[in-house]
Amino acid sequence: MKSFTIQTTRKIEVIDITQEVQSRVSDGKAVLIFAPHATAAITIGEFEPNIKQDYERFYSELCPKSDYAHNSIDDNAEAHLLSSFIKPSLVVPIENGELVLGTWQSILFVELDGPRSSRKIVIQTI
Amino acid sequence: MKSFTIQTTRKIEVIDITQEVQSRVSDGKAVLIFAPHATAAITIGEFEPNIKQDYERFYSELCPKSDYAHNSIDDNAEAHLLSSFIKPSLVVPIENGELVLGTWQSILFVELDGPRSSRKIVIQTI
Amino acid sequence: MKSFTIQTTRKIEVIDITQEVQSRVSDGKAVLIFAPHATAAITIGEFEPNIKQDYERFYSELCPKSDYAHNSIDDNAEAHLLSSFIKPSLVVPIENGELVLGTWQSILFVELDGPRSSRKIVIQTI
Repeated sequence: MKSFTIQTTRKIEVIDITQEVQSRVSDGKAVLIFAPHATAAITIGEFEPNIKQDYERFYSELCPKSDYAHNSIDDNAEAHLLSSFIKPSLVVPIENGELVLGTWQSILFVELDGPRSSRKIVIQTI
Repeated sequence: MKSFTIQTTRKIEVIDITQEVQSRVSDGKAVLIFAPHATAAITIGEFEPNIKQDYERFYSELCPKSDYAHNSIDDNAEAHLLSSFIKPSLVVPIENGELVLGTWQSILFVELDGPRSSRKIVIQTI
Repeated sequence: MKSFTIQTTRKIEVIDITQEVQSRVSDGKAVLIFAPHATAAITIGEFEPNIKQDYERFYSELCPKSDYAHNSIDDNAEAHLLSSFIKPSLVVPIENGELVLGTWQSILFVELDGPRSSRKIVIQTI
């Protein structure tokens, strides 16, 4: 099992971690990318400046700030709710030690309750 | 492959199954937690009484009761739609025979069409 | 690693690929079903004509056409946003060379930006 950490700079922020993942993949059949956090997620998709801001807008609008019960103890219920939907776990195939990705696919870390100085991502080749 | 069953008590209900999963994990690289049901899901996130009710509210509101075509044959389209989004499959890393989980992460069974007397959860170490 | 391609015929379309997946599964512990596309997804659920049209309605309504920034360069932001949520990766357990599926579960390819003449699905037994 390998891991690395990243820093985030905004409340909701999508960050391309494809290179960090690829450099930690061993030869195997697939790789599990997992974030041990309850207010973040891992997904896969196109990544360019326009769509980056669209992801952040879509996630914010899908679960706008509301009077959730959890907000009375820690003001981040929306981050937990979105994390439970997108989920912090993704499995991608490997061939010849390389991630099998489509032309427009990048592996994405989704910050939902930032900014945070250290978010951990675990890489497990299986 | 191992499995266990749980009982659910409400239409939409989030249940912490972390201990049931951990006790069935073998030594390996990761564990697949899978529900062989089309109206339930498996996710991961914080679990305390407030956020539990927030999950249930968020899922209900994201797909409110409507005139879906499936409801003319079986009145649970909304459960199928949410299940297809959250999905009944989750992979979590293992190290030294233990689930690798963040401080605030619990493995969660999501009932979307309860109550049900017996929901099966399959545990496959990979 | 095995793969196959399918054709899609509508903008948003859910297609049952259970048989195509089952026929390519080797003996193992689980199978990863992965689409190397940024505007499609893989999920699992019931499949009959009514629910098929409900999935397509629900996905369209959850992310309606809007003035997303990506649409100024390629008019398919909504497809990317939904794909990042449902995700093009699914892991299902295997027992005795057979997919472990519930009675009402089918493996589903979700086209989000069709029609397309060739969508690839990768099958990796792990």
